[in-house]
Amino acid sequence: MRDAFPRSGATAIAGTVRIIGIDPGLRNMGWGIIEATGSRLVYVGCGTLHSQAAGETASRLRELHEGLAKVIATHRPDEAAVEETFVNRDPQSALKLGQARGVALVVPALAGLPVAEYAANLIKKTVTGSGHAEKTQIAMMIKVLLPRCEAGSADAADALAVAITHAQHRGMKRLEQGAR
Amino acid sequence: MRDAFPRSGATAIAGTVRIIGIDPGLRNMGWGIIEATGSRLVYVGCGTLHSQAAGETASRLRELHEGLAKVIATHRPDEAAVEETFVNRDPQSALKLGQARGVALVVPALAGLPVAEYAANLIKKTVTGSGHAEKTQIAMMIKVLLPRCEAGSADAADALAVAITHAQHRGMKRLEQGAR
Repeated sequence: MRDAFPRSGATAIAGTVRIIGIDPGLRNMGWGIIEATGSRLVYVGCGTLHSQAAGETASRLRELHEGLAKVIATHRPDEAAVEETFVNRDPQSALKLGQARGVALVVPALAGLPVAEYAANLIKKTVTGSGHAEKTQIAMMIKVLLPRCEAGSADAADALAVAITHAQHRGMKRLEQGAR
Repeated sequence: MRDAFPRSGATAIAGTVRIIGIDPGLRNMGWGIIEATGSRLVYVGCGTLHSQAAGETASRLRELHEGLAKVIATHRPDEAAVEETFVNRDPQSALKLGQARGVALVVPALAGLPVAEYAANLIKKTVTGSGHAEKTQIAMMIKVLLPRCEAGSADAADALAVAITHAQHRGMKRLEQGAR
C-alpha cells in the first residue's frame, strides 16, 4: 500500500501522514512509526536501538545516529516527533540525556523531516487520559489504539505514544503556525 | 604541505597528527584545528559555527551538524577532542547544552575519528598553567602558542585550547589504554 503513495519529505499525501515517534535515551532509544489518516491510525513498525554501555559516548551516539538514520531510510516517515524529556535529576544526568536527545532531534532533521516536540505529560494524557499514567498503562493503551502492534519494549511503546500524540496535535500546531 | 601526508582516518602518519578541538554550544560552536609533531604545534584553521536562534532546536542542531561535517571533510583531521562542559546550572540548561554536545561528539565519530573529552579546568591548566584562567588569558596564550593563528572569537580560541590539550595528553591516554 505504501508504494502507492510516493513521499516527498515533509508533505503529507492524500491526507495520510506517516509519523515516527522517538523516545530518546543513550542506552535505549525507542522508535515507533504509524500512519494517520484523519483520526484513523495504522501501525507500521517499532523497535529499540541500543548502544553498547561499555563504549565511549561518541561511539555510542554514533551507533544511535546510524541506527536511527537506517530506520528513517527504510520506513520513510513524513514527520517526526520527539519526547520532551522531563528532567528532575542532576545537571550531569541531564547533560548526558541531552546528548542522546540531540541525536534523536538531528537525525530526522538531516533527513528533511519537520520535528515536533511534546512534553511527557501531554503524551501520557493523549494516550491514556491521565498526565500521570504509569508505563504499563501506556503500553496497554498502545495495544488498544494500535491492535496490530507488537511493541517488544517499554521504549518502543513510549515512542508509539509520541507518534500518536503528534497525530492528534499536528493539526493544531499547523493552525498555530499559520496564525503567526 | 598537508598533501604530502595522505591521511587514513584515525592513524597519525609520520609522527604528525592533525587534531580538531571543539567547544560545543547551541548558539555558537567553536572549532580549531592544529597539527602536532611531537611537542611542535602548527595552526591549521579555526572558526565558529552559528545556529539561528529563531529556529527550532532540531533545525539548529542540523545547521551545526552539517557545518561541522563540512569542516571535517575540508580539513580532514585525524583525531577529535571535545570540551567536557562543567555544568553548574539548572538541569534544563544542561539538557539543551547536552543536545549541542551530542552533535559535537557524533559528527567526528561518524567520520571515523577517535573522540577524546577533556574537562574545562584541565584545558585551562594545560594552556595557561591555571585551572581557573579567564577567557581573555586563554585567548592570549593561544596567540603565544600558535603565532600564526587568527582566532576571531572566544569560542574558536577555546576550541584551539581543546586541540592543544589533546596534543599534550594523547600520548598519556594511549599509554593508559595500552596498560589496560
